[in-house]
Amino acid sequence: MSQVKQSNIQVGELATGQALTIPLYDFIGSNASAPSVYIQANVHGAEVQGNAVIYQLMTLLEGYDVLGNIKLAPLANPLGINQKSGEFTLGRFDPITGVNWNREYFDHKVDLTAWYAKHQHLSNAALFDAYREMLVESCQARLTLPFGITTGHRLAVSLQSMAHQADIVLDLHTGPKSCKHLYCPEYDIDAARFFSIPYTLVIPNSFGGAMDEAAFCPWWQLTDFAAQQGRDFEVPVSAFTLELASQERIDLADALDDANGILAYLSHRGVVREKVEPANMARFGCYLKDYKKFHAPKAGLIEYCAAVGQPLIAGEPLVNILRMDLYGTDDAHQVISLPMDCVPILHFASASVHQGTELYKVMTNVFTL
Amino acid sequence: MSQVKQSNIQVGELATGQALTIPLYDFIGSNASAPSVYIQANVHGAEVQGNAVIYQLMTLLEGYDVLGNIKLAPLANPLGINQKSGEFTLGRFDPITGVNWNREYFDHKVDLTAWYAKHQHLSNAALFDAYREMLVESCQARLTLPFGITTGHRLAVSLQSMAHQADIVLDLHTGPKSCKHLYCPEYDIDAARFFSIPYTLVIPNSFGGAMDEAAFCPWWQLTDFAAQQGRDFEVPVSAFTLELASQERIDLADALDDANGILAYLSHRGVVREKVEPANMARFGCYLKDYKKFHAPKAGLIEYCAAVGQPLIAGEPLVNILRMDLYGTDDAHQVISLPMDCVPILHFASASVHQGTELYKVMTNVFTL
Amino acid sequence: MSQVKQSNIQVGELATGQALTIPLYDFIGSNASAPSVYIQANVHGAEVQGNAVIYQLMTLLEGYDVLGNIKLAPLANPLGINQKSGEFTLGRFDPITGVNWNREYFDHKVDLTAWYAKHQHLSNAALFDAYREMLVESCQARLTLPFGITTGHRLAVSLQSMAHQADIVLDLHTGPKSCKHLYCPEYDIDAARFFSIPYTLVIPNSFGGAMDEAAFCPWWQLTDFAAQQGRDFEVPVSAFTLELASQERIDLADALDDANGILAYLSHRGVVREKVEPANMARFGCYLKDYKKFHAPKAGLIEYCAAVGQPLIAGEPLVNILRMDLYGTDDAHQVISLPMDCVPILHFASASVHQGTELYKVMTNVFTL
Amino acid sequence: MSQVKQSNIQVGELATGQALTIPLYDFIGSNASAPSVYIQANVHGAEVQGNAVIYQLMTLLEGYDVLGNIKLAPLANPLGINQKSGEFTLGRFDPITGVNWNREYFDHKVDLTAWYAKHQHLSNAALFDAYREMLVESCQARLTLPFGITTGHRLAVSLQSMAHQADIVLDLHTGPKSCKHLYCPEYDIDAARFFSIPYTLVIPNSFGGAMDEAAFCPWWQLTDFAAQQGRDFEVPVSAFTLELASQERIDLADALDDANGILAYLSHRGVVREKVEPANMARFGCYLKDYKKFHAPKAGLIEYCAAVGQPLIAGEPLVNILRMDLYGTDDAHQVISLPMDCVPILHFASASVHQGTELYKVMTNVFTL
Repeated sequence: MSQVKQSNIQVGELATGQALTIPLYDFIGSNASAPSVYIQANVHGAEVQGNAVIYQLMTLLEGYDVLGNIKLAPLANPLGINQKSGEFTLGRFDPITGVNWNREYFDHKVDLTAWYAKHQHLSNAALFDAYREMLVESCQARLTLPFGITTGHRLAVSLQSMAHQADIVLDLHTGPKSCKHLYCPEYDIDAARFFSIPYTLVIPNSFGGAMDEAAFCPWWQLTDFAAQQGRDFEVPVSAFTLELASQERIDLADALDDANGILAYLSHRGVVREKVEPANMARFGCYLKDYKKFHAPKAGLIEYCAAVGQPLIAGEPLVNILRMDLYGTDDAHQVISLPMDCVPILHFASASVHQGTELYKVMTNVFTL
Repeated sequence: MSQVKQSNIQVGELATGQALTIPLYDFIGSNASAPSVYIQANVHGAEVQGNAVIYQLMTLLEGYDVLGNIKLAPLANPLGINQKSGEFTLGRFDPITGVNWNREYFDHKVDLTAWYAKHQHLSNAALFDAYREMLVESCQARLTLPFGITTGHRLAVSLQSMAHQADIVLDLHTGPKSCKHLYCPEYDIDAARFFSIPYTLVIPNSFGGAMDEAAFCPWWQLTDFAAQQGRDFEVPVSAFTLELASQERIDLADALDDANGILAYLSHRGVVREKVEPANMARFGCYLKDYKKFHAPKAGLIEYCAAVGQPLIAGEPLVNILRMDLYGTDDAHQVISLPMDCVPILHFASASVHQGTELYKVMTNVFTL
Repeated sequence: MSQVKQSNIQVGELATGQALTIPLYDFIGSNASAPSVYIQANVHGAEVQGNAVIYQLMTLLEGYDVLGNIKLAPLANPLGINQKSGEFTLGRFDPITGVNWNREYFDHKVDLTAWYAKHQHLSNAALFDAYREMLVESCQARLTLPFGITTGHRLAVSLQSMAHQADIVLDLHTGPKSCKHLYCPEYDIDAARFFSIPYTLVIPNSFGGAMDEAAFCPWWQLTDFAAQQGRDFEVPVSAFTLELASQERIDLADALDDANGILAYLSHRGVVREKVEPANMARFGCYLKDYKKFHAPKAGLIEYCAAVGQPLIAGEPLVNILRMDLYGTDDAHQVISLPMDCVPILHFASASVHQGTELYKVMTNVFTL
Repeated sequence: MSQVKQSNIQVGELATGQALTIPLYDFIGSNASAPSVYIQANVHGAEVQGNAVIYQLMTLLEGYDVLGNIKLAPLANPLGINQKSGEFTLGRFDPITGVNWNREYFDHKVDLTAWYAKHQHLSNAALFDAYREMLVESCQARLTLPFGITTGHRLAVSLQSMAHQADIVLDLHTGPKSCKHLYCPEYDIDAARFFSIPYTLVIPNSFGGAMDEAAFCPWWQLTDFAAQQGRDFEVPVSAFTLELASQERIDLADALDDANGILAYLSHRGVVREKVEPANMARFGCYLKDYKKFHAPKAGLIEYCAAVGQPLIAGEPLVNILRMDLYGTDDAHQVISLPMDCVPILHFASASVHQGTELYKVMTNVFTL
């Protein structure tokens, strides 16, 4: 039986002076050599289901023997979560600047030549400790820059600073209308077999601004650089983005499934003493280069025909586009299909779209994991 | 076989100078004494399904013998439909003023004592013609007021001007996450047995700003006034709001069901020559006074447990409220239920809410129609 | 020398669970028979200058002998103030429902016949105490209704509950781009000579949803009803809305002027012992029926030619409308003027407008107060 | 006397089916060897003053002998201009995706090694023609990609396609609350002496996503590459962003000043036959590395003390921050100043800010041009 400890972190301040705070929950592991874990949810304001998964995971963990430290940060973007616009949460980007909350993380751009030269004499463990300390300190330094940093970067760097202290980082998101899928870096593809997630997107080991990349990239770069110097070790940090179905949805039963999937991965990594088996299910992969965005070729009303998570044969209807201004012409009702087999992973949330709206993201060249 | 004629009406002008126009479709009836019809859809920007219903209804009507004139106005609020905010349509109110697009209609406040005195010598048919002409002219006069009128009122009065020319007015809406339901004035309750809609809200014969009320209220008032003078006739105009399930959804198959329901009502009223039977289904009613709004008693993440359109027994779970800031306390997870039997008709669209958000609307004291 | 005491009131809860609180400042008067005062600011989120006026007023009051209790509530709408949309504050209406934050107050609709019958035996002082108690209790009762109330109504009724406890209520607002003006009920027109505000709008003694009306209407109704029963007394409560120039503007020097104007009124009413003279300035009035809204007759780019607070002769340019889509035609550049003399009081904040946008509000038939 | 020809370009389609179009105005030059010009305005929806400058410039040009072709595109972002949020224009980013409209241009990433190898035999004139044709065709190709492109990229590439056909590209913007300033690439610094703009930001010759960079970067890269191959020519294309004071403001008189400044530059470049002298005024420069953003160190109400365009001595007040929740403490009113001399160029538009909001941009190390 393990116990959780609650605290808070302040990540900003609203115009009225109210602190923007995030609740933190810590399980203190009983084994200092077990990997440590950081899990956050709801950085995009409408993507709430990760909170329910954290809720179920904490409930489960209380019944397990927790070996590694686990820090959980639900409701990780209070400003984004509380920003409504009509009946929905406008939580994908900073309402002032438009910047995507998940593209605000800090790119360390470590000068590895210099850093490695100074630290290569260290043992692996000491090398990793020094590197980790450097990453955390770089984040802390940004929070006190004399001319300040943006609201979104302050939030991101505050979160990143916690993430850098862990060996395993899980960022819980959802798509708009989406099936479950995992963002997994190429070097860590084996991990994809533990989560309760059918589809995995295999991404390159490079930085695009998101939390998972912010967490693993510096470590992949260190590993790669050391290898070039003839010193081989596994990438010491694992980081994933879990897309847990659709936004604006809380489903406690489904959250329990995903909590069990996460637990299976943590068990595999030795974070809990007990053996937890992954769900017995088919799992598929797709490379990022084969992940296609389909944009509305014209404006109109959209009937989304293709179910997310279900294979779609080339030529089968993806969407119907209805154009009420063109009734009586051939363009009043148009069926759109794709020229290749695919698995639709997510689609847009609204049923009327401007030309160019991203209607669907589909996986092509899907393979079994 | 009937044919439809397309035209457009301009209802405003955007800052860049582009005209705000609405496509209009007219079936010209073959029998001048058959009732005329006005049907509009999508006055609230996210409530798109009514367009699909109009699409299916026009397709059906082409195969029928249309006796009365039918005017159809899909996409009836171009500004509201095109106003996105994040991935959803912010179409419920004017983004500048906040005024609900469906509360902008003109309240004629006819001085019936004066008007009736001047026109009481007329036959019923001539009386109705004169009254209708007065209503249309009042609308037209507003469009040319010297200091102008608001954007929303211009749109509403333009639509209202068309509606006043019809004997039957249908305003096609949807709820947020909703089952189908009908707003029906008390005096016209028999009509509710024709549409393919299981739940009917019986509303008083008074004006609250919406299209249906704007269309029937002046006529109910005339009828009521004449009755006081000892002259009895049926209310000459019928007007209903149809709530066709959820917003941000196009479903062509379901739209066909509702088109058939509308056709059954029009057939009953003699607008088409053919006999169209209403769907064989259970239909229920509820008085407006028994239609209850349940507001979030506290903030949090919401799991909507009660299915819309399904009876809910007193004490059964309505929602789960999850409070991630309170994990470890009794308030972390709270089940909310209602003290009386009800039928949940609609619920809020977002899964995280501030205190006071309208979570559910439920019918109580439901009776069989 | 007087001292202020700080506290907070909770008026709601955000989705993340954070309390919505308003800071309260209380000066405790030394004379129980002096009138009590309630002043709030910033109920509309972008209208911040009232906070600066409260700041300056509190600084001044510390140097005066305060006889009546004074409660000050700056930042009175934390949700509205913190809701940004782009670089501006979207603070005029609830972002979810569109309802104007200043139209959410409770209309008591007191059954005066019944209430007065029960309380007419009381002395004036006791009658007023009983009435006030009833008003406050009605507000408190709303906050605990079993099915809850909306977010905006909860805020409004919480504020109203404090306002009802005072004899003088000041609600500090601003216009969009505006000169200073005062909303003053007809029965209290003499008060307009004390504030540092040149233009006064004389409003009827009826309820339209705003705070000033919510505060004075029940008292005016009581006074009116008692007079009909042959019992005469002055309306016991005064309430005003002060429009302190433009939104999105803090000007501490100007705020001191308005703080002094408020102090002059409070001095006149005996709330402070010291005599404070009103500013020596011209003051003008206009009846609400002569306060005209001018809507954009067509869309386009707007140059606002008429300065707010400066008389404008009939026929002089009000705005230039530029239509870049019509360059080369007579409609490319159009000068708009009004057919009567007026004083422009405020104009719209944006320089490009849809047809129907409220461009200017102007006073006509202006008279010297 | 020159004449202008009007046309339109379609750049997208709204959900209701309405075309998004931009009005285009063309002066056909009388001398084929004179440089051609492309000028656009209002890509950010609230930045309207550039339209007035185009209006005044066209009026002026009608009285000049125009030698080079001039294409003018006012109202260049119809979707952004028409998107209001409250009383302001939410025009800085796509309301769906949050992407800044001025970061959507296409980065050609020309493979210069390959392209130059194939074309180096051409004369300069022929080389430039071939390069220009390749740029335009690349843009056109994007507009017909099989899976489509985003709404914002479609707009940007449509504009870019027109810009690439010109030798001189001017993109007319404004700041939020701003003095006039020019973005000028290092290689073209002499041009800054012609516009009626006091402050010039000297930017590197690299691509960051904006129109000016999209227009000049490929040409600077070609010039640089050719120089490395021993072939020297001037960068054939000039492109600038003009920031014409504040957003949400039309001022026709001020627009005439800026039209004259643009005319002086065009005259200098031989686009009009007549000699037009630049305004006699002081002009200053600053390198991008010395252009500093100052972020709100804490939240609160902001009085902007430093006037834009006026030198500010180190230590003088930049802003006052008022914290009404902290009245009675030292933090209630805080004066913020900078540690170095600077010229404030622009400040934020709202007077209440979250922590981290970009309050001011200031030029440091300012030099005389």
